[in-house]
Amino acid sequence: MDNTKMHKSLGIDLKAHDTLIRALPELFKECFLNKEQDLKSLSYFYSVVADIHGTRVKELIEHKNKGPVIGSFCIYVPEEIILAIGGQLVGLCAGADFWVPYGEQIVPKNLCPLIKAGIGAKFSKTCPYFQVIDLLIGENTCDGKKKAWEILSDMVEMYIMDMPNKKSNSGLKLWQEEVKSLCNFLEKKFSKPISFDSLLKAVQKVNAKRSALNRLYETRKNSPTPISGIDTLLVTQIGFYDDTERYTKMVETLAKECEEKALSNSKSNDKKRILVTGSPMVVPNWKVHHVIETSGADVVVEENCTGTRYFKDNVSIENSLAKEDLLKNISDRYIRNINCACFSPNTDREEEILKICKDYKVDGIVYASLSFCTTYMIEAEKIRKVAKKNNIPMITVESDYSFSDLGQLRTRIEAFIENL
Amino acid sequence: MDNTKMHKSLGIDLKAHDTLIRALPELFKECFLNKEQDLKSLSYFYSVVADIHGTRVKELIEHKNKGPVIGSFCIYVPEEIILAIGGQLVGLCAGADFWVPYGEQIVPKNLCPLIKAGIGAKFSKTCPYFQVIDLLIGENTCDGKKKAWEILSDMVEMYIMDMPNKKSNSGLKLWQEEVKSLCNFLEKKFSKPISFDSLLKAVQKVNAKRSALNRLYETRKNSPTPISGIDTLLVTQIGFYDDTERYTKMVETLAKECEEKALSNSKSNDKKRILVTGSPMVVPNWKVHHVIETSGADVVVEENCTGTRYFKDNVSIENSLAKEDLLKNISDRYIRNINCACFSPNTDREEEILKICKDYKVDGIVYASLSFCTTYMIEAEKIRKVAKKNNIPMITVESDYSFSDLGQLRTRIEAFIENL
Repeated sequence: MDNTKMHKSLGIDLKAHDTLIRALPELFKECFLNKEQDLKSLSYFYSVVADIHGTRVKELIEHKNKGPVIGSFCIYVPEEIILAIGGQLVGLCAGADFWVPYGEQIVPKNLCPLIKAGIGAKFSKTCPYFQVIDLLIGENTCDGKKKAWEILSDMVEMYIMDMPNKKSNSGLKLWQEEVKSLCNFLEKKFSKPISFDSLLKAVQKVNAKRSALNRLYETRKNSPTPISGIDTLLVTQIGFYDDTERYTKMVETLAKECEEKALSNSKSNDKKRILVTGSPMVVPNWKVHHVIETSGADVVVEENCTGTRYFKDNVSIENSLAKEDLLKNISDRYIRNINCACFSPNTDREEEILKICKDYKVDGIVYASLSFCTTYMIEAEKIRKVAKKNNIPMITVESDYSFSDLGQLRTRIEAFIENL
Repeated sequence: MDNTKMHKSLGIDLKAHDTLIRALPELFKECFLNKEQDLKSLSYFYSVVADIHGTRVKELIEHKNKGPVIGSFCIYVPEEIILAIGGQLVGLCAGADFWVPYGEQIVPKNLCPLIKAGIGAKFSKTCPYFQVIDLLIGENTCDGKKKAWEILSDMVEMYIMDMPNKKSNSGLKLWQEEVKSLCNFLEKKFSKPISFDSLLKAVQKVNAKRSALNRLYETRKNSPTPISGIDTLLVTQIGFYDDTERYTKMVETLAKECEEKALSNSKSNDKKRILVTGSPMVVPNWKVHHVIETSGADVVVEENCTGTRYFKDNVSIENSLAKEDLLKNISDRYIRNINCACFSPNTDREEEILKICKDYKVDGIVYASLSFCTTYMIEAEKIRKVAKKNNIPMITVESDYSFSDLGQLRTRIEAFIENL
């Protein structure tokens, strides 16, 4: 399908976009197609990436006749409220090195690649998702993003949700207010009241998506795991911008196939089982998984925003008789159980990681932080101590989106796996 | 005076401390004594620095018989409440390169020197102020500090005040709660209720200190300025750990001398007048001022935490009939008018800078950010735009505590001043 006309209508810089998109097939081949893979249901997810700036963009343009398309960069933006207003939520471009130099024209180089790429994606006019959205919802989860919103809001309409730094009573109250305010803002902006029924339906839809992902991840507890880490990462990444209902069905199908594969699998393998934890990994950032899994180990679980943090808890609908109850439950689900390093202290993350290590029979932890990701980088020290105390080997890697450190990364990770 | 015995009793690493303190006289001579200076009242402030780890530490040790000594790293910690409990508030060591390598043993290198030095000062046991305190009050003004508290709290007793990221209604409410909670916490911890009278007296004391600093800075609006920028910076820095009442008197005396000097001064000078703005500058960080003022310009005002942000507004006592009113006014004073880059948006800072430029007849802005100080570094872009629109030349310099970039810094700043 030729998307040129559509991209032109979105104001895409076609020449720059061409350069960007031309690099993808090679990278995708290297990371996904060159390895052994026998799950039929993965073909859907592969096809989504192969057509990353095509069909889905077209769907979103069509959707704009019915409701808004809203962008975000973070799992704290409550998808339920966006769906309830008849909107679609899409995670925006922020994962490729291509966008970094564009971002560095506006924000300092000493900033995490995700933020620089996000700003660069808008500034370079090469992200169709950025061009399609009616609104970008930002959130104050780190200094870099918080201050970047001030720059981005000159280029795109923004609404910003504040975050507390502590899960104290005042902190929880502040977030409750922020969730309510978002709801009020969207109702007013798009002149559409959110009813109890529409919100309940939205909650059920997003709960179903999260349950499907939970079911998929559950199969990775098997030894050997029926699905590779990099394939699961890809599946989770797609959850950020695919249509929620279709995506849920596809993940269910995949989970079922993985369950059957695990049941029928009589082979054992002695591959080391790795937990990847740290900063989020946005499409097409597959670097750390690729290195680990081509170094002879399996990534069996990710404790990050493009892993368990995205889906592990559902919004409660028990005793919800009014919209206010649901909003309160939505607020609770996001603030209480997501153990983001933006919180201080964030001790629940330590317990969560230990539990995951036990449940997934983890042999070693790769703590992967994006360069200049202050919160996760500092928190690594806490996690290192906890891991040591519990005799779980851990290595910390800090990396950006470039491929210049690939050799060094491989050397360190291979040595780590060998010593497990 | 030989402080060895006292330092030993505080658990200071005497050998490392010797190395640290031996470097100070040379630096002080270079920055302060080698220049022309004719203000008699400065001798007090010079003597405080010359004896930086002596007399004042002794006073604080003695004070501990009467009340607590409490440390902080930020102007958001309300001194009024600490004084009202009978305490003394001291800004802790965080300004010398000496401490950075110690800090880097625990926190990432990609972190601002102030935080690394602060942690290093404790870890190396070479800061007597750190050793003397009963409690450290931290605040969540940036990712680096927020996460560093988790590390520091293993080494020193801490209480942490949360900060909102937006000055929204919920944000203001959160901070009000935090101020109240601090008050309750200190009353309980030190078993001493804070009465309306004691709080009022404390408010008046700190207001007087701020008014004295305002009076001093006011004299710098004269052309030529009666006091150099680096001397004023030193005076302001000392305000963070000196005894409040004595300090206020000394600043009053100095301000009076500056007023008289300005009145009697018939000479004019054609030195360019510089505003320094950006990250805080903690003792002995005098680098940027030293370079500017030995390059032929005068720093006439600082819009930073060791400048106008520290003292420009007082706590209102009008209509304060109860402790709750005062606490509310304290909360308001700190949150509403301090334009820290931790807030998003922080547009009031733009207006403030323009007003300062006009009031102080500023010829050019030196935007001085500490390395890896994300919030101020990103905000530089906003200030650059505003300055440009108002035809005020601006240069951005990013620097840490080392002297390795001194040559480069001088070249850039000299070129900037020449072109004004």
